[in-house]
Amino acid sequence: MNKEIKEFLASINNGIDGFSMPKTPSNLYEPITYILKLGGKRVRPMLALLAYNLYKKDIETVKKAILALEVFHNFTLVHDDIMDDAPLRRGQETVHTKWDSNIAILSGDVMMVKAYELLSYAPENVLPTLLKKFNTCAQEVCEGQQKDMDFENLPSVSVQEYLDMIRQKTAVLLGFSLEMGAILAGAPKEDSNILYEVGINMGLAFQLQDDLLDLYGGNSFGKQIGGDVINKKKSFLITKAIELNPANKKELLGMYNADMDNHPNKVELIKNAFDQLNIKEEAKSLIEKYENEGMEKITNLKTPYPKHLLIDFFNILKGRIS
Amino acid sequence: MNKEIKEFLASINNGIDGFSMPKTPSNLYEPITYILKLGGKRVRPMLALLAYNLYKKDIETVKKAILALEVFHNFTLVHDDIMDDAPLRRGQETVHTKWDSNIAILSGDVMMVKAYELLSYAPENVLPTLLKKFNTCAQEVCEGQQKDMDFENLPSVSVQEYLDMIRQKTAVLLGFSLEMGAILAGAPKEDSNILYEVGINMGLAFQLQDDLLDLYGGNSFGKQIGGDVINKKKSFLITKAIELNPANKKELLGMYNADMDNHPNKVELIKNAFDQLNIKEEAKSLIEKYENEGMEKITNLKTPYPKHLLIDFFNILKGRIS
Repeated sequence: MNKEIKEFLASINNGIDGFSMPKTPSNLYEPITYILKLGGKRVRPMLALLAYNLYKKDIETVKKAILALEVFHNFTLVHDDIMDDAPLRRGQETVHTKWDSNIAILSGDVMMVKAYELLSYAPENVLPTLLKKFNTCAQEVCEGQQKDMDFENLPSVSVQEYLDMIRQKTAVLLGFSLEMGAILAGAPKEDSNILYEVGINMGLAFQLQDDLLDLYGGNSFGKQIGGDVINKKKSFLITKAIELNPANKKELLGMYNADMDNHPNKVELIKNAFDQLNIKEEAKSLIEKYENEGMEKITNLKTPYPKHLLIDFFNILKGRIS
Repeated sequence: MNKEIKEFLASINNGIDGFSMPKTPSNLYEPITYILKLGGKRVRPMLALLAYNLYKKDIETVKKAILALEVFHNFTLVHDDIMDDAPLRRGQETVHTKWDSNIAILSGDVMMVKAYELLSYAPENVLPTLLKKFNTCAQEVCEGQQKDMDFENLPSVSVQEYLDMIRQKTAVLLGFSLEMGAILAGAPKEDSNILYEVGINMGLAFQLQDDLLDLYGGNSFGKQIGGDVINKKKSFLITKAIELNPANKKELLGMYNADMDNHPNKVELIKNAFDQLNIKEEAKSLIEKYENEGMEKITNLKTPYPKHLLIDFFNILKGRIS
């Protein structure tokens, strides 16, 4: 990892470590410290800093505001993990598993408040704009999560419906992260719009990678292997498999939507079916398409400072799956 | 009810009816419309309008921003009802009962975002102040709810601990509502501070009334009678009963913390014990103390416009229990 990117990451982690969380009620605040310290790449505040850095160099002045992105993201993880009944997150117990669902609901709520609190450290001249865009983004993230849950009760979902869902659930927050950095730096509106679109591309690629990792990532990523299959979650893999082989739709969905109790080897059977349809390659090809489009948009930006850090970070994210 | 107060209420309800909620995902937005249409006195936006009205008359200019208070309040109801496993709210099914817990979590989340969206309609010159104060208030409300839940697992709680909890859970939002109205009107800081304290007094009185209503309100209030007793919730009534009769603490708590399955007549037994200690009168006396203090603070305010509407509304709230 590039030295400057490492410094940015250290600065972000430093900011998170510096949160002055009240001691009590401990059931409210300990889960927040716990989830925030599970680590991760801090992708969202990193994107904001990298976008800011294309126009201005005094990153310390915006460091607090951009941490709103990380806290908001972790809020969504805490609530999503309840809804998905996920036992693990980054290889550790999820909040509702380690504590309980009620504590996870309320800690998540406080995290959302904390995100707005951090956001309000943005300079007053851009605060109304950022607040408005952040609200829109947050609402879209919730819509995406609701669609994701709704999809579980639908027999099948088209590839397009799936892509629309992950755009909202994952991509818009990455788009807003880059846009926020640009807005904080006073970048031209045209640039902040383009950066938003770069984030959308990255987010779509990112989520498709996540779908791939569920079955093809091994267990080194700290998640349950085949969790999506076990929980009958509509992922790109299953929607694409149905699109490619509609004649086999009924049989494939029958197995995909079966309970593990009745089909303990369900994950293996589904993986075999996907392999026959080259689903892994299909996903990789679409990921590459989104990545290339995003990279092209970055290249076309006319910024006062060089773009190599943002491009480096983009490449680091791409490297998540071989 | 006073004609002008009726007009204020109509204006608030009109604003709520005018929310343009997206149609889909219906599982996300229908619960929001549902809970907001269950009605209620709209106490919080009403307080904000009444405070604003002490300094300025053009209430239409702030109507959108003050609706944030009602949406935020309803967000807390939706999430609290999940945590308390409450079947009814204003005589109707709670959101997690009518839909499910996951939908209630996520709809609540969107309501919080919606509250911030409405708040951001405040004029830019006061937005940063309001945002900061709203964040503090929202965080305190969550702390209060966490303490309330923690109390359920404690064998007993002192009257003071209980009052500290309801201050956060209920009173600070009423305090902020009045303060917000004053700030929006550009009132002197001294006045907005006093109005905050008025709201605290009203909130404490309000919550103590709620505690009384649980056992002494009949079922006309749309709630399960004795719900607090059934769910072993620490209310003012039980904390005061223990304070008044410490010798009987073990026996009283033994019954209070018993399961309904083992003691189907638990609510009646507890009510008898409270009656012997005149708990109803104790509660009423404390309610009166808070009400009188609040009223005195209003009387001392030196505002350009008369205070009778705020006082009338205060009296309407007082009238909740005879």
